[in-house]
Amino acid sequence: MPDGQRADARRNHARILAVAEQEVAAHGADASLEQIARTAGVGSATVRRHFPTRRALLEAVSRQRIDALCARAHDLADASDSRGALLEWLGEVVAYSVAARGLAAALAYDGAGSDPAHGNSCSAAVEEAAEPLLRRAVRDGAVAADGVTVADLITLVVGIVLATEHYPDPAAQADRLFRLAVAGLAPRP
Amino acid sequence: MPDGQRADARRNHARILAVAEQEVAAHGADASLEQIARTAGVGSATVRRHFPTRRALLEAVSRQRIDALCARAHDLADASDSRGALLEWLGEVVAYSVAARGLAAALAYDGAGSDPAHGNSCSAAVEEAAEPLLRRAVRDGAVAADGVTVADLITLVVGIVLATEHYPDPAAQADRLFRLAVAGLAPRP
Repeated sequence: MPDGQRADARRNHARILAVAEQEVAAHGADASLEQIARTAGVGSATVRRHFPTRRALLEAVSRQRIDALCARAHDLADASDSRGALLEWLGEVVAYSVAARGLAAALAYDGAGSDPAHGNSCSAAVEEAAEPLLRRAVRDGAVAADGVTVADLITLVVGIVLATEHYPDPAAQADRLFRLAVAGLAPRP
Repeated sequence: MPDGQRADARRNHARILAVAEQEVAAHGADASLEQIARTAGVGSATVRRHFPTRRALLEAVSRQRIDALCARAHDLADASDSRGALLEWLGEVVAYSVAARGLAAALAYDGAGSDPAHGNSCSAAVEEAAEPLLRRAVRDGAVAADGVTVADLITLVVGIVLATEHYPDPAAQADRLFRLAVAGLAPRP
């Protein structure tokens, strides 16, 4: 690709992404791809060339928050309280996903797996970052969750966020249900 | 309304509902209302007159399953094992919601509350039916969930179903996460 075309493509990519961030913030994961194309002043085919799927667009929009969650997982990996570290990190996934529209959808399992054209999917990066947190907590006996994976925990969090988004106070209800899922429905001791 | 018009309205209602059942089974809660109107041979305004909101349509489509879940809750109300009864019922809500597209959305909290034009909302009916199951389990000490409501439990189930719908085997993954939420992330005993 000649330099001029390459520069055009980079500008288009940046413009589409900037518009997509606003549209997803306003309308969530179902934001209209046609509207994004119109506002960015490009055709739908151009949007699809840069972001072949809705998921790819949502992942790009959520990139910074995904990176921040991965960084938090690395920071917490050496915490002395391995149970507290895992729960604190999961609580941050809840809070981030409630606050940032589109993030829950970017983290949700979509059946497509990683997209070779876009490197590993966001959920794979987050899972890899958080894996040591879960492994340490299980090894310490701080979480009796044999066979439970980070993907299971993230899917549970994503579900809580999706199911609470129309509550008057989604953050409070999501946090309430997250605590319920951590505590479980054990008999009274 | 003259008898002829009333009979017309009833026929339209039945036809729209029959088409909606097929469309929701094929496309889930996001089924196109325009497509439903076209296939039923009526205008969009007629669909809206019979079902003012997407939620009202989904509730009508899910009516029989909702009634069955309420009936199961009544059947289980006298079971000797109050914990087992509650968990069996919740497990059936999971299984039904995985199997019947649109049901999770009909059960989800939508912020609108009950719609006076359509009687109580489905979720209110289900909550009322299941309330005695939770109350008995808590009273027996079989569930240490002070302050937890049936609405909390149903929202958790709805979230699990929504977040697992793209897994290769949604029923298995939803059941797995439901068991995880029931067990919680307790430390190893």
